[in-house]
Amino acid sequence: MPPEQVFDWLDAEANRRADAGLTRRLRPRPASSTELDFAGNDYLGLARDKRVAGAAAAAALRWGAGSTGSRLVTGSTELHAELEHELARFCGFQAALVFSSGFTANLGAVTALSGAESAIVTDKYIHASLIEGCRLSRAGIAAVAHNDVAAIKHALATRRTARALVVTDSVFSVDGDLAPLNDLSTVCREHGAALLVDDAHGFGVLGEGGRGAVHAAGLAGEPDVVMTLTLSKSLGTQGGAVLGPRRVIKHLVDTARSFIFDTGLAPSSAAAALAALGALKSEPDLPARVLSNAARLSEQLSDAGFRVTQPEAAVISVQAPSPEDAVAWAAGCAEQGVRVGCFRPPSVPDGISRLRLTVRADLSESDVDTAVKVISSSAPPRAATS
Amino acid sequence: MPPEQVFDWLDAEANRRADAGLTRRLRPRPASSTELDFAGNDYLGLARDKRVAGAAAAAALRWGAGSTGSRLVTGSTELHAELEHELARFCGFQAALVFSSGFTANLGAVTALSGAESAIVTDKYIHASLIEGCRLSRAGIAAVAHNDVAAIKHALATRRTARALVVTDSVFSVDGDLAPLNDLSTVCREHGAALLVDDAHGFGVLGEGGRGAVHAAGLAGEPDVVMTLTLSKSLGTQGGAVLGPRRVIKHLVDTARSFIFDTGLAPSSAAAALAALGALKSEPDLPARVLSNAARLSEQLSDAGFRVTQPEAAVISVQAPSPEDAVAWAAGCAEQGVRVGCFRPPSVPDGISRLRLTVRADLSESDVDTAVKVISSSAPPRAATS
Repeated sequence: MPPEQVFDWLDAEANRRADAGLTRRLRPRPASSTELDFAGNDYLGLARDKRVAGAAAAAALRWGAGSTGSRLVTGSTELHAELEHELARFCGFQAALVFSSGFTANLGAVTALSGAESAIVTDKYIHASLIEGCRLSRAGIAAVAHNDVAAIKHALATRRTARALVVTDSVFSVDGDLAPLNDLSTVCREHGAALLVDDAHGFGVLGEGGRGAVHAAGLAGEPDVVMTLTLSKSLGTQGGAVLGPRRVIKHLVDTARSFIFDTGLAPSSAAAALAALGALKSEPDLPARVLSNAARLSEQLSDAGFRVTQPEAAVISVQAPSPEDAVAWAAGCAEQGVRVGCFRPPSVPDGISRLRLTVRADLSESDVDTAVKVISSSAPPRAATS
Repeated sequence: MPPEQVFDWLDAEANRRADAGLTRRLRPRPASSTELDFAGNDYLGLARDKRVAGAAAAAALRWGAGSTGSRLVTGSTELHAELEHELARFCGFQAALVFSSGFTANLGAVTALSGAESAIVTDKYIHASLIEGCRLSRAGIAAVAHNDVAAIKHALATRRTARALVVTDSVFSVDGDLAPLNDLSTVCREHGAALLVDDAHGFGVLGEGGRGAVHAAGLAGEPDVVMTLTLSKSLGTQGGAVLGPRRVIKHLVDTARSFIFDTGLAPSSAAAALAALGALKSEPDLPARVLSNAARLSEQLSDAGFRVTQPEAAVISVQAPSPEDAVAWAAGCAEQGVRVGCFRPPSVPDGISRLRLTVRADLSESDVDTAVKVISSSAPPRAATS
């Protein structure tokens, strides 16, 4: 085969995606814009906060632009240690470990806490990074129907291994619905399983002062519970973390491949996360503003005739009849100055395309009202509910 | 089982690791120190360069501390697009795609360019992130002996799928030896396979002006060749990238799960990488300084009686008789003000523990001489060569 033809199969796949309306395109954004953002995950509006951006800038100048190595060689700075200490204390866990992204944190937690001698039982709508962790784990996997605690219980009861790990999102990333964490913990305890919760969309938004969904459920610091979070959503920067009992964190340091073999988080991002955590502590009403904006957006869209999810945190979705419709609706919103997310397969667990909307603490009621008007004019509610 | 016992199995594993000398400990470092660093991967000494750190700081203030979303939603800024354009142009490829780390770039490239209908043939010493990509790929995997082109050829000739991908590091990360890229390309072409090269330790150090090992081999921009690199080594910040034919990059945007489901790289890191690339272009002699420091370190250690690898880039290793010896030697160096890497299983492909040394462009000859003296006094050369 001539070298020019080695990747010809990619063209055939691209054509198939184009026929199905599933081609993606990057749309680089400028530094400042008048666009109203209802798509990003900067839930507390802290990414551009002067305290947070200023801390990132100061850390880059003081520590350099990178951590210079993996965390076990030269990539652990005192900033990383301080951030781990503060995250664990704020969320109510013994210890924490910072990764370069939420994706690698989830890979590390799932793989290190399971293995060939373990069973993993998951909700089938968990985040892609958790699914990749399951695939890497060598464990037997049971992925059950969404939010079906009885199915989780059955899978735990019929497993063939002594060890088991139940894996779930707290707030599911596409529709923003909540997992029944207390019920999951109960069945885990009935069956001697550990519980791993990805609180990426709960941390900073739910629980007392934004301590997250695990804390709200009274499960923070429990000896059989592990939580992951991102630094890139409520804390406005980049990175992820795993929180849990001290022996779990030590185990990750020794065995999690996505920790050991990855360069440490840039010092500027660690400093930004610390500053954002400080801002959240000093303004404990920020989470409530997120929730009231989400409620307002959902109610108004529902009144306008859309099939919209009930928000439990900052995420709302509006189903679309086809991927092409979702793309056209999102483009129509963008033309009118409102950025919304457009989620299509493979980014939707049930194959249904959606507008995926997020709110922030720093949006005004008038911003929300504008978004509703724009979405209503770009996406015909009748089509949306059909 | 009481919840307190769910993670008891971790203690048993921790005890096994302690008995084998394989316990790891994080050692957070301060912002400034008089320690001589022979462990980090900041090969060109750019992490703390004022142009690079200054660009990171300015970008944090202008763009915010994070990219606010996945690359396909709100996480692509004009900085990301510019960085992708400049990386591709500098290294001689049609296009590039920036990831949040080299780890996720490798996961994305391997998985998206293989799949169940493909075979993957690898050198068994490839980086852990490539191995994780192979495990996730659903492809049939043949991992052959280190740098054995005949074995690669045999595996390609006897595969059962039409498609095949050969995966290799350019500079292997533990011993710093080079893959025979031209021979690998030849067997790939004889057998209709694509070639994926992780140039993490070659980019910035090898090739014309630091364009990397793929460029040096005359393979940059070839229609059947894909290259990955990190922004966290020669460019002194955080992140990774995949470079290749335009259709490969488009395919990754549509299908690479570690790209689609991960928050975009922080703008400060993208800006730092751009500034570091500018510094490398304006000082094309930086790579030669790395190589001369590596040669000086290797020669002097060899003269002192150590079993040391011949440096092809910035990485040199010194074998140790046991993991405990490697730890003790590294600790002895640290006490005398020289930081060296200590690599033990599972971070060494052959199970042999090592001191792993790196050099930078900004080390003086006297720095190298100091390191040799300290290593010689901390690690008895006779034990090292036994």
